[in-house]
Amino acid sequence: MTPALYLEDLSVGQRFASASRVLDADAIREFAARFDPQPFHLDDEAARSTLFGGLAASGWHTASLTMRLLVDSDFKLVGGLVGAGIDELRWPRPTRPGDRLSAEIEVLELTPSRSKPDRGMVRVLITTSNQAGETVQSCIARIVIGRRPG
Amino acid sequence: MTPALYLEDLSVGQRFASASRVLDADAIREFAARFDPQPFHLDDEAARSTLFGGLAASGWHTASLTMRLLVDSDFKLVGGLVGAGIDELRWPRPTRPGDRLSAEIEVLELTPSRSKPDRGMVRVLITTSNQAGETVQSCIARIVIGRRPG
Repeated sequence: MTPALYLEDLSVGQRFASASRVLDADAIREFAARFDPQPFHLDDEAARSTLFGGLAASGWHTASLTMRLLVDSDFKLVGGLVGAGIDELRWPRPTRPGDRLSAEIEVLELTPSRSKPDRGMVRVLITTSNQAGETVQSCIARIVIGRRPG
Repeated sequence: MTPALYLEDLSVGQRFASASRVLDADAIREFAARFDPQPFHLDDEAARSTLFGGLAASGWHTASLTMRLLVDSDFKLVGGLVGAGIDELRWPRPTRPGDRLSAEIEVLELTPSRSKPDRGMVRVLITTSNQAGETVQSCIARIVIGRRPG
């Protein structure tokens, strides 16, 4: 078990790598049927004539799976991972059936709260890549982080 | 059936309202078990001592359900809803078990592509509200949109 991290344990530029997980066609279709039922996320044949050119995961599926990779990674903050907001979310390339995804977290900025001495904010760049090392998602997130009791 | 929309059919300031859907505690826990297995998304008792003060949906669950509200709404674009990116995503208030969510889409900006005459970009503000009319998510998204053949 990695001990949970306080703001004081992090430094700008620090990186964390997640394990990897495979997204298969069944999972892509199942998520899409529930949350994003569009032809290019449901059916490979129908997807061929679209912008995607073949079955692709919903961007929200890639984002949700990335969250799972983070929760299982060593980027464990005291009190858990509570998003204060996303400043940018991009999907430069689709996630395809069978893609094995992994995430890297880079610390961009650490800001102690002015009003609440027990917490602060960490701004991170989360890059999700497929097995070829190509970026399928980049996300800049602000996450609540506790401060080490003095 | 509402006919699918081209860039030329939209104007800045135009609004679309979705239907509504309920997120119950089972759905919150099921999504969290798969994508965001943290105590405050899994167990009401454990959630009480956290920042959330009680069971709350993962922000990615609120985002994914919002996508479903959009897909089922009258905001139907030719070629479907393909996100080019999210410029801002905020969760000002948690989604709670039993919340009935609905989304409103407001057209912020319409930009024809310079290089591709058959398409452009629509920038929208998507506001997700609970049954009390409180905002649980705001999202500024850029979506690919086709241009009406001349």
